Amino acid sequence: MRVGVIGGGQLARMMIPAAIELGVEIRVLAETEGSSAQVAATMVGDYRDVDTVLAFARDVDVVTFDHEHVPQDVLARLVETGVAVHPGPAALAVAQDKLLMRCRLSEIGIPIPDWAEARAAGDVDAFLAEHSGVAVAKTPRGGYDGKGVRVIQSAAEIADWLALGPVLLEEKVGFIRELAQSVARRPSGQLAVYPLVESTQRDGVCAEVIAPAPKAGRTAQAAAARIATTIAEEIGVTGILAVELFETDDERILVNELAMRPHNSGHWSIEGAVTSQFEQHVRAVLDLPLGSPEARAPWTVMVNILGGPADGDLDRARAHALQQHPTAQVHLYGKSPRPGRKIGHVTAFGTELDDVAYTARAAAAAFD
Amino acid sequence: MRVGVIGGGQLARMMIPAAIELGVEIRVLAETEGSSAQVAATMVGDYRDVDTVLAFARDVDVVTFDHEHVPQDVLARLVETGVAVHPGPAALAVAQDKLLMRCRLSEIGIPIPDWAEARAAGDVDAFLAEHSGVAVAKTPRGGYDGKGVRVIQSAAEIADWLALGPVLLEEKVGFIRELAQSVARRPSGQLAVYPLVESTQRDGVCAEVIAPAPKAGRTAQAAAARIATTIAEEIGVTGILAVELFETDDERILVNELAMRPHNSGHWSIEGAVTSQFEQHVRAVLDLPLGSPEARAPWTVMVNILGGPADGDLDRARAHALQQHPTAQVHLYGKSPRPGRKIGHVTAFGTELDDVAYTARAAAAAFD
Repeated sequence: MRVGVIGGGQLARMMIPAAIELGVEIRVLAETEGSSAQVAATMVGDYRDVDTVLAFARDVDVVTFDHEHVPQDVLARLVETGVAVHPGPAALAVAQDKLLMRCRLSEIGIPIPDWAEARAAGDVDAFLAEHSGVAVAKTPRGGYDGKGVRVIQSAAEIADWLALGPVLLEEKVGFIRELAQSVARRPSGQLAVYPLVESTQRDGVCAEVIAPAPKAGRTAQAAAARIATTIAEEIGVTGILAVELFETDDERILVNELAMRPHNSGHWSIEGAVTSQFEQHVRAVLDLPLGSPEARAPWTVMVNILGGPADGDLDRARAHALQQHPTAQVHLYGKSPRPGRKIGHVTAFGTELDDVAYTARAAAAAFD
Repeated sequence: MRVGVIGGGQLARMMIPAAIELGVEIRVLAETEGSSAQVAATMVGDYRDVDTVLAFARDVDVVTFDHEHVPQDVLARLVETGVAVHPGPAALAVAQDKLLMRCRLSEIGIPIPDWAEARAAGDVDAFLAEHSGVAVAKTPRGGYDGKGVRVIQSAAEIADWLALGPVLLEEKVGFIRELAQSVARRPSGQLAVYPLVESTQRDGVCAEVIAPAPKAGRTAQAAAARIATTIAEEIGVTGILAVELFETDDERILVNELAMRPHNSGHWSIEGAVTSQFEQHVRAVLDLPLGSPEARAPWTVMVNILGGPADGDLDRARAHALQQHPTAQVHLYGKSPRPGRKIGHVTAFGTELDDVAYTARAAAAAFD
């Protein structure tokens, strides 16, 4: 069996060990030489170019993705030529366009913040008037890690975006924390639901994940699981679906964003779950039976390594982290340090949350 | 950092995920196209050829091994040209020649079965006379997985071997079970000692490993750890040293064989230990700080997949195993099924040894 991954980032990189252990051949179409997934990169090229993608797909059993940016016309041609594509184009369309996503989520009854599509300043004014004068504006396409998101109090603050096209407006939710729920789904329908986790963002970027989410009640867990499985089934997602959630001060669970691929909120599962999200994704897209998504330890904490050492000496930083924290699991993505860049993560697990969180945070801090 | 591995077998293959996660580049010199470690094979060539090996070693920070068969003259040239080689030639010499191994182990006071070097039939007769008429004969070089081993009662049974050179004769030990002790050692001296494990051989080939060794007392554990650390330090082993042991009916621990590389008896550690033997080997040969070798679960059982499905349909067998055993960890080595061939292994872990062993054995049996 052979899986082809479009995109050579750290998500593709972390699928490689999973594929190797399963005895599945993995090939990557990378954007550039020297990508994170270089060891498995059999082609370097532009994922927006139909011929490039068709050539890449020729010798694989299924095409899957490191990101959601492959254009629909390219996806359509893949499907036309008989290539198995997971997740499929219709599902990916929902992940690619935040306005379409809100439409579909509303249609299938998923709880989400109030939202509207703004095409002109008047639409923004009307939405602000209904929502205490504040809203979260998002560009429908291309945003990630806090990019393409602004908290606004006037239409003027997104005049530049409105000039380019419609903008998503959302109610600014009074949330007490962010959660994430991952589920894997095979084309043949089998589902595997991961434990609900808590994620902490800094400057719009995931900083830390605790699995399972501390003090999450059965009601919240059941609601999150129902939301994720409903989305996966109704939208026909195959592979990993990660659902970013808000837990509100009035105990509601609302969907914030979706990702149809392994997600930063699931990196804890490499050591923390019986089956990691990366292995699960590979299994799911190949329509292989799914593995147990259960947690292996009472607590697992994942902390991102953001930026890396100011002096750029990653070898020294890694040696320092390994020396100080022999139980920490250090993951580096083959990227050069750069302020704010996700260059790796650290995971720790154990029975005492305080100890586990300390180890993961301290080992990640060794890279500062 | 860049590690170069000579040999493209499953041990090199399983170093790849460890290197990827650590952010270490890994390159493999494989014997053939389509090797188990193909994804990281940057060169295909003969490890006995000095120029091939020197060319491979040019761009790596350290050279290590998938096997112990690189000739001493090739190793010497590597060292002469300033390449870091771990384990080093002097240590590897002890692993390469079973007679030299017994000499060195005797010198440093390690308990081993009675042994002698036989150069002629008379030497064999004398040894048999002293050992109740039975002995284990081994060719000094090239044996593995039961090859190059005969239980004999007369010199005539190894006349073919004696014609070629000296033969190792060993006392046939009345052992109650086989154990294995792994230790990792950095060039700078740091050691990490893994839990003592029990291994079961069938037809001279490792079939199953239980970690930790059931009912192993503190005395046996301490003796095994002392034996392994003494060998590692006295012989200057760097990387993983795996020591195969006999536990005798009179409660002694005797060394059977040594391996200076990740070893089948340590595959359980991929999921079963905080730091797998493969990650530990990569860390050790790069002189990076070692990780914790502690067990993660009360019990971990590893069962080899030997031979594979008679119909050769590994994809179907894998799907069957994954379907029936969602908590089992399936590892395949990218090899074609062939009677008796090690083509993969299955690991299970948990709190009840019976359940864990059942899962691992049943999942491995799905490949029969």
